[in-house]
Amino acid sequence: MVRMAFSAQLEYEVLDAGCDFIFNIQAAYTPRQTVVEESLGLEPALTASYYTDPQTHSRFIALQAAQGRLSVRYSAVVDLIHFEAAPGELFELSPQALPGSVLPYLYPSRYCQSDRLLAFAGQQFGGLSAGYSRAKAICDWVGQHVSFQGNTSNSNTSALDTLIDRVGVCRDFAHLMIALCRAINLPARMVSGMDYGADPALGPPDFHAYVEVYLCDASGAGRWYMFDPSGTAIPMGFVRFCTGRDAADIAFATIFGSVNAAQPVISIQAVPDAWGQLVVPQHVGYALSTDGA
Amino acid sequence: MVRMAFSAQLEYEVLDAGCDFIFNIQAAYTPRQTVVEESLGLEPALTASYYTDPQTHSRFIALQAAQGRLSVRYSAVVDLIHFEAAPGELFELSPQALPGSVLPYLYPSRYCQSDRLLAFAGQQFGGLSAGYSRAKAICDWVGQHVSFQGNTSNSNTSALDTLIDRVGVCRDFAHLMIALCRAINLPARMVSGMDYGADPALGPPDFHAYVEVYLCDASGAGRWYMFDPSGTAIPMGFVRFCTGRDAADIAFATIFGSVNAAQPVISIQAVPDAWGQLVVPQHVGYALSTDGA
Amino acid sequence: MVRMAFSAQLEYEVLDAGCDFIFNIQAAYTPRQTVVEESLGLEPALTASYYTDPQTHSRFIALQAAQGRLSVRYSAVVDLIHFEAAPGELFELSPQALPGSVLPYLYPSRYCQSDRLLAFAGQQFGGLSAGYSRAKAICDWVGQHVSFQGNTSNSNTSALDTLIDRVGVCRDFAHLMIALCRAINLPARMVSGMDYGADPALGPPDFHAYVEVYLCDASGAGRWYMFDPSGTAIPMGFVRFCTGRDAADIAFATIFGSVNAAQPVISIQAVPDAWGQLVVPQHVGYALSTDGA
Amino acid sequence: MVRMAFSAQLEYEVLDAGCDFIFNIQAAYTPRQTVVEESLGLEPALTASYYTDPQTHSRFIALQAAQGRLSVRYSAVVDLIHFEAAPGELFELSPQALPGSVLPYLYPSRYCQSDRLLAFAGQQFGGLSAGYSRAKAICDWVGQHVSFQGNTSNSNTSALDTLIDRVGVCRDFAHLMIALCRAINLPARMVSGMDYGADPALGPPDFHAYVEVYLCDASGAGRWYMFDPSGTAIPMGFVRFCTGRDAADIAFATIFGSVNAAQPVISIQAVPDAWGQLVVPQHVGYALSTDGA
Repeated sequence: MVRMAFSAQLEYEVLDAGCDFIFNIQAAYTPRQTVVEESLGLEPALTASYYTDPQTHSRFIALQAAQGRLSVRYSAVVDLIHFEAAPGELFELSPQALPGSVLPYLYPSRYCQSDRLLAFAGQQFGGLSAGYSRAKAICDWVGQHVSFQGNTSNSNTSALDTLIDRVGVCRDFAHLMIALCRAINLPARMVSGMDYGADPALGPPDFHAYVEVYLCDASGAGRWYMFDPSGTAIPMGFVRFCTGRDAADIAFATIFGSVNAAQPVISIQAVPDAWGQLVVPQHVGYALSTDGA
Repeated sequence: MVRMAFSAQLEYEVLDAGCDFIFNIQAAYTPRQTVVEESLGLEPALTASYYTDPQTHSRFIALQAAQGRLSVRYSAVVDLIHFEAAPGELFELSPQALPGSVLPYLYPSRYCQSDRLLAFAGQQFGGLSAGYSRAKAICDWVGQHVSFQGNTSNSNTSALDTLIDRVGVCRDFAHLMIALCRAINLPARMVSGMDYGADPALGPPDFHAYVEVYLCDASGAGRWYMFDPSGTAIPMGFVRFCTGRDAADIAFATIFGSVNAAQPVISIQAVPDAWGQLVVPQHVGYALSTDGA
Repeated sequence: MVRMAFSAQLEYEVLDAGCDFIFNIQAAYTPRQTVVEESLGLEPALTASYYTDPQTHSRFIALQAAQGRLSVRYSAVVDLIHFEAAPGELFELSPQALPGSVLPYLYPSRYCQSDRLLAFAGQQFGGLSAGYSRAKAICDWVGQHVSFQGNTSNSNTSALDTLIDRVGVCRDFAHLMIALCRAINLPARMVSGMDYGADPALGPPDFHAYVEVYLCDASGAGRWYMFDPSGTAIPMGFVRFCTGRDAADIAFATIFGSVNAAQPVISIQAVPDAWGQLVVPQHVGYALSTDGA
Repeated sequence: MVRMAFSAQLEYEVLDAGCDFIFNIQAAYTPRQTVVEESLGLEPALTASYYTDPQTHSRFIALQAAQGRLSVRYSAVVDLIHFEAAPGELFELSPQALPGSVLPYLYPSRYCQSDRLLAFAGQQFGGLSAGYSRAKAICDWVGQHVSFQGNTSNSNTSALDTLIDRVGVCRDFAHLMIALCRAINLPARMVSGMDYGADPALGPPDFHAYVEVYLCDASGAGRWYMFDPSGTAIPMGFVRFCTGRDAADIAFATIFGSVNAAQPVISIQAVPDAWGQLVVPQHVGYALSTDGA
């Protein structure tokens, strides 16, 4: 078990009267991610609506802000109880054997146009033996063929652009890996959290986007396993905020109006658990999942 | 109430050993679409998995076929109990006031890149008074500026392509309308069914794709209202099969392998109800919904 | 006749040893643009190759710079002897009646994919009466439907993007106008120069891109006539540097290697001619050409 | 020397009154491609304009046809006097050392968006030693990673699409090779001709598109050398019709109006020369050029 303490602070100057926001910055409640404590502060004090998606456990905060300053602060302590599996024991399911709720993650989405990549993904990864190692091969290929570089992509950049341009940030790496997985019929989705363990040379701590691939273990149980194609952070320290098909679903803030936004201020660290034990997340050679029971 | 009887027959020659199929050709069970009788035939007899999405009520059939012939026949009789509303009484909700389950239909998707259309949709429709009439104005604009023409688009054609090329078939009209609605923060989604009432000059009866927009009535109740931007068929006769963000979600057949496919054979007609009364669907001036209670 | 004095100063820090540059910053020599005096300074002193395209009169400077500083200064005084025509007397030629050298400007190019816009341009402009007024209608339409805004486009932005996004800078306005003209079989090309007369609120003086359309006067003589779809500057004060199909051909600097580039320092003004007469360029209601004899 | 005899027959039913055509189906006159005899037949007899581009030697036929049938027949006998070079002796020139007339072929064009491929081409081919062998490596890479398949691309398909989709016909192979060459600063252009030597299994003889790359021999002389990335035909038998940046420039017919077009009827064969000697084109291991003196 890993205990993570983190906080996010978002500051806006709202330019329009009556600007709507939808935030996805809260830790999801799942059997393997227990929220020990959390606190949400809105300034000015505003009435917000809260919604939890029953399938993804993503938590939405919807509110309308008046002109002027809006400040959102969220902090939490969560316990991550990872499911760990030996890579060699994880296999792929054929589409017809997938649970129905997994099917949407086989289909193309806004930024992951897997329908265009059938031939390329087939050429490149079709011949590899199926299972965790193939998902890992895709993850590694993306990490090796795309350069991490800030300000090279924008909100319109898709997996096809990244395949062509070979440059991007964490969301672009994730989109390309997801699209390639779906193109070989491997369900893949995107998760938002924080870039625990990232090299300070890449900038201050930030939100992060990573990938989950649906695989089945030897007992026949399917789960979503974590991958970090950008390789910039340490998956064992990833907290789950929002889960979706791609960045269109999991933006930390969707804003309907004109604002000036400050750079989010993020902090995340491993802390001792209730028994005083500190487990520091590290890179591991086995497969990790925070999905399921 | 309208009673519709319809059938669909799909014929495939499966070329690969072990080809997976996911079909979405069954009438959804909803409070306003009652399935009076239905029958599904698979030849050869195959074990299939059945899954109903809890949010959209879409029904999935997943199966694996052996090499050789695969025949899928589905027929049903359904009663449509439309909710009818005066257009002038339907208003839009601001994003923060939407139910959480509606939020995904505000976001861009594979074929409906609404994030690119904020400026254009704002120019064209931003100044119109909000409500059903604005959704209808978008529907009409698409119908007037896009030409219906077979074989002009393919599975890669998106709303942006259709906005540029100004030509397409029903799915392209639907994608463009959906993208434009989302671009002005109007939730919109795609539904599959059959093109009841289509001009025989456009070809034999076929599957159809249409649009639903989320609006609120005077009592404060939100519902999805039907629009048919291609204008080729009669919405009152539309049966709901599958509901999703765009064509990526609602294909009548998603096929994982090589097949030869015959043109689907479709029939649909209005039939007398249990009391012997025949209501023939027609174009109406009020708003129709088959969503909700 | 208008006499313009201008200068451009480009400063680079070359990071690679042996970086090639191609510059297009010199005033073209044409019968209607006489270069009274000019001066080109390279620091360090470098051997460069000079090439003038026989068809467009574009002047290329090609050189290889060593690591370190590279400074290019060009200044000139030119006399513009505009051909002036009454808009109502300028007509369009059908493709087969065009001079052969004009044909390339009918075809789509990197940033002006006119082949995609046949239907849209036909809908929007096909019904207008042919001639200068139709080219002007396209120019005005672009000016009215696209917002001028810095840092909204990049070197990959094409006419299709601008038609969708409705925002850009002078090159984007020019690309969209060119693509729309070609789509109705009106030859159009792009010219680089300086933004004489631009509102200082848009920033310091800068390079500029504008459009020329090929039209025929009452005497049967064809010429390229100037249009400025961004509407930010005063065409009568435009000097011709480089002429091409689109921005791919007329970049003021094409750089083959890594450099840090300072913002170009530009100045341009009208000056008294040899007889001491000062003609200040202004917006005029007639058609202007600096092409041909 | 190789003597080729060939013919092309184009048949149209013109639906609009007054439809313009521009044809590029005639053998170019160059020092290394001598036209021994040729014949052009138009039915009905029409006045056409003829234009030869001074730089590319491309020959344009422009005409306006009335409603009804239009038939164009062209046949010719040409002598090809290939310049032959040892691959190992051909080197690349840096951009600043290129003749000015070659520069346009360094820049991106409608279907060859080399500006997007700098990183990918650098990764893939940047480390290879410069010269003919590098151009050949690009040619081979394209041939190995793209499948030749009819009806998989259309007039909108660009090099970026082909890089993603990995399927196409000769023009798509050519576009991708050209874009990759330009992305590493190797000038490349497209030539139209006929697919001499193509496998009959690919269909009847057809027009063909191939690539030329500008390289320099040991004597310092630059020339355009032939490559056929689709690998479907025999370059030694290629006649030069039209030369341009990409397919936008070299279509065998550009049509301004509505027509029904029959499939072109093409024939091409090697024939004995004036001395009765028959040289049959074959695949060779050395570099071939029909450019220059």
